[in-house]
Amino acid sequence: MAAVERQFQNQLDEIKSLLLSMGNSVEKALETVVTGLIQRDLEKLEGVFAIEERINHYQVELDQVCTEFLAKQGPVATDLRLVISIIKINSDLERMGDQCVNISHSAKDFIQQKGSFSLQDIQVMAAVAQKMVKDALDCFVTRNAEVAQKVLMTDDELDQRKQQVFNQMVAAMKKDSTVVEPAMDLILIARNLERMGDHATNIAEDVIFVSTGKDIRHGKYS
Amino acid sequence: MAAVERQFQNQLDEIKSLLLSMGNSVEKALETVVTGLIQRDLEKLEGVFAIEERINHYQVELDQVCTEFLAKQGPVATDLRLVISIIKINSDLERMGDQCVNISHSAKDFIQQKGSFSLQDIQVMAAVAQKMVKDALDCFVTRNAEVAQKVLMTDDELDQRKQQVFNQMVAAMKKDSTVVEPAMDLILIARNLERMGDHATNIAEDVIFVSTGKDIRHGKYS
Repeated sequence: MAAVERQFQNQLDEIKSLLLSMGNSVEKALETVVTGLIQRDLEKLEGVFAIEERINHYQVELDQVCTEFLAKQGPVATDLRLVISIIKINSDLERMGDQCVNISHSAKDFIQQKGSFSLQDIQVMAAVAQKMVKDALDCFVTRNAEVAQKVLMTDDELDQRKQQVFNQMVAAMKKDSTVVEPAMDLILIARNLERMGDHATNIAEDVIFVSTGKDIRHGKYS
Repeated sequence: MAAVERQFQNQLDEIKSLLLSMGNSVEKALETVVTGLIQRDLEKLEGVFAIEERINHYQVELDQVCTEFLAKQGPVATDLRLVISIIKINSDLERMGDQCVNISHSAKDFIQQKGSFSLQDIQVMAAVAQKMVKDALDCFVTRNAEVAQKVLMTDDELDQRKQQVFNQMVAAMKKDSTVVEPAMDLILIARNLERMGDHATNIAEDVIFVSTGKDIRHGKYS
């Protein structure tokens, strides 16, 4: 391989590896807030802020290296699609960090209140969201369009589960006005978990775009 | 100007103009759902779906032309930063379309229920969000970093107003369990308006990045 090609490949590998480190941090942030909520552990919930800061640093660095790579290496075809996708996935991962912070706030609120809500449904939602995030990052590495498709399909399940939590909490608030605050916390946590799934879906769509050149968003098969 | 430079400039102008058409559609979508809610007009609220579809088409087209432009023209420096920013702003605008659809759903729910909630605070929030979206798009055109800074500052105001609506609605639900559903609708509408402001903020940050080369996200002045 010529030196210039090797440099191109090295830089591209570095960008991919940076994105995956960022992805690992997002997985860690999600695991931290979910465990913190289930174990009612305030200290753990506080721990997410340091992880989110790391995610934010990754975002800035990744944008910089992608811009430099585009300027200096002028990639085309699959490599160009890959870098464009990484720029978009970068935004998704950063927002997933924000959502983990939101979950931390609601969870801290929740565990400091009285109330006897079961966290079982939230726990199932969290497990589904975690699997989607993991699969989305895995299929980015393997370029496995089948796993990416699975992520897209799982998103419907997550939406339904969110709606279920939402309906249950509205019913509970109507029945007993003293549970409004903890019920609202669970509604907000469910919404944030659902949004984590939306971002995992965006990543999976980007993976399909890189692998196939097909833009499958909005039912487009162009 | 040489023919090749003219072609470069023409294509870049076309991309910018496409982004602005998309931005106009987002402004139209927001105006439609806000008016539909205030005037309790179901038909108007339905009208947002066609606008959102247009926004989704713009998103796919814009990604295509940006990818082609990067591949064929290999822009550098400010032009490269501009195209990268447009790719990101494209995602923000598409999500703003989604949020208008969410607002439409909650608003339809709200106006079909009994209840006597004043919409005054939501109306103020909507006006603030509309101004932020308008200013964000305007400063993209004029590259006016001062207007962009104003958008960033207004975002705090919008967050505070959302928190105010949230607190009022929680208090109302605790006092009277028959208002849980309309109160939840207003909470969701307030959250979606706040998220519109977040996306306008992202756009303003991108404008500052294009104009100055400075990444001001997360307090970074690198």
